[in-house]
Amino acid sequence: MAEHTVKSFTEQLEALASSVAQMGGLAEAQLADSIDSIAKRDTARAEQVVGSDRKIDELQQVIEEHALKVLALRQPMAVDLRETLAAIKIAGELERIGDLAKNIAKRAIVLNREPPIRLAQSLARMGGQALAQLKLVLDAYSDRDADTAEQVWKQDGEIDEMYNSLFRELLTYMMEDPRTIGLCTHFLFIAKNIERTGDHCTNIAEVVYHMVTGGHLAIDRPKSDLTATTAIRIEKKD
Amino acid sequence: MAEHTVKSFTEQLEALASSVAQMGGLAEAQLADSIDSIAKRDTARAEQVVGSDRKIDELQQVIEEHALKVLALRQPMAVDLRETLAAIKIAGELERIGDLAKNIAKRAIVLNREPPIRLAQSLARMGGQALAQLKLVLDAYSDRDADTAEQVWKQDGEIDEMYNSLFRELLTYMMEDPRTIGLCTHFLFIAKNIERTGDHCTNIAEVVYHMVTGGHLAIDRPKSDLTATTAIRIEKKD
Repeated sequence: MAEHTVKSFTEQLEALASSVAQMGGLAEAQLADSIDSIAKRDTARAEQVVGSDRKIDELQQVIEEHALKVLALRQPMAVDLRETLAAIKIAGELERIGDLAKNIAKRAIVLNREPPIRLAQSLARMGGQALAQLKLVLDAYSDRDADTAEQVWKQDGEIDEMYNSLFRELLTYMMEDPRTIGLCTHFLFIAKNIERTGDHCTNIAEVVYHMVTGGHLAIDRPKSDLTATTAIRIEKKD
Repeated sequence: MAEHTVKSFTEQLEALASSVAQMGGLAEAQLADSIDSIAKRDTARAEQVVGSDRKIDELQQVIEEHALKVLALRQPMAVDLRETLAAIKIAGELERIGDLAKNIAKRAIVLNREPPIRLAQSLARMGGQALAQLKLVLDAYSDRDADTAEQVWKQDGEIDEMYNSLFRELLTYMMEDPRTIGLCTHFLFIAKNIERTGDHCTNIAEVVYHMVTGGHLAIDRPKSDLTATTAIRIEKKD
């Protein structure tokens, strides 16, 4: 292979990684804005998030097509192959994070029409934690840092714990005042969406780890969302 | 390329497609059993679903490694490349459907300890619709049938409509009797999980369509889950 071809291949991989980083930046901004729109009751910002999701979707399409071209024309091997596939997979995860941010923003628009409730701050804190995880895993990707990826993977339990405690608070809130059920249902799904954002960060962490090391973090993801098995009896007031 | 090499490549692609079909069959069985465990209040079956999810996860790992080998050693082009990547992507979607079935089954175990409520039947109907979509899209994959894939993609709105109506029923139920809030929250998340299963079928439909035709169904998925923008006022009883 001629020298300039090799260089151009490296450049193509770098361009791919840079598109993924750009998409990561967009997803991060969307998530931050959707959480801010709840914490600061900023409906205009929520509407912006809803309108901007399309950009992320388009970027995913671009990355996928670019990666397919690299695969078809360059036929990469070993770490280059893993990098190309990582771009496709991470773009898929980021697209879902963008969708979740959009859904959070849609619900924020509805919430901001109602009187504020204190649980909004717990939700914002949980969102802040998910955002920190996303930043960290994007850094791990850019720096090809398997240790940081593993750290993100291990830390997901913290978001799950926040979710579990918020979930119980919300149930209590609804039982104390059934008129808040509609409102609390939106909170419940926002909390779930944030928890799922954390799961997607965990998925990205697995991809980064595999990309860098060629190994697998584990088949079982760390999972501490216990609400699926929460006994109903406990949640009743008496 | 020697004749036997070409044949062996075709065989490798066929083996990959057959693993995906096998994984599809497992995911279908898991979803069917999780829904049955609600409809028939069958806790033993729910526990089986929870225990069997690992098989799906392992199969995903196998498919991914096999596909990576095909990419590295065979360097497929055009439709062969799209098929190899489709295997990776569909396996990813099926893994998520398996996760959702597991989560539904976990919640079913809790529900089955409580007295039956009529909403369980609406939930089972919605689950049946999601299952039908999954069967259809797996057929589309096996038959390389872009038309059927497009049909699945267009039909997702039906599940979303069932979800919207069940969502409203559940809110009314909770408001009428706040002691059911814990129970109804499980129902709410099961319904959401089924709705998400439908979304994954839509994703698979997009992949199959792209695999067969090389084109894209659309950037925007059909989306009719309106509950994110449901005004809270409407849901109040007075």
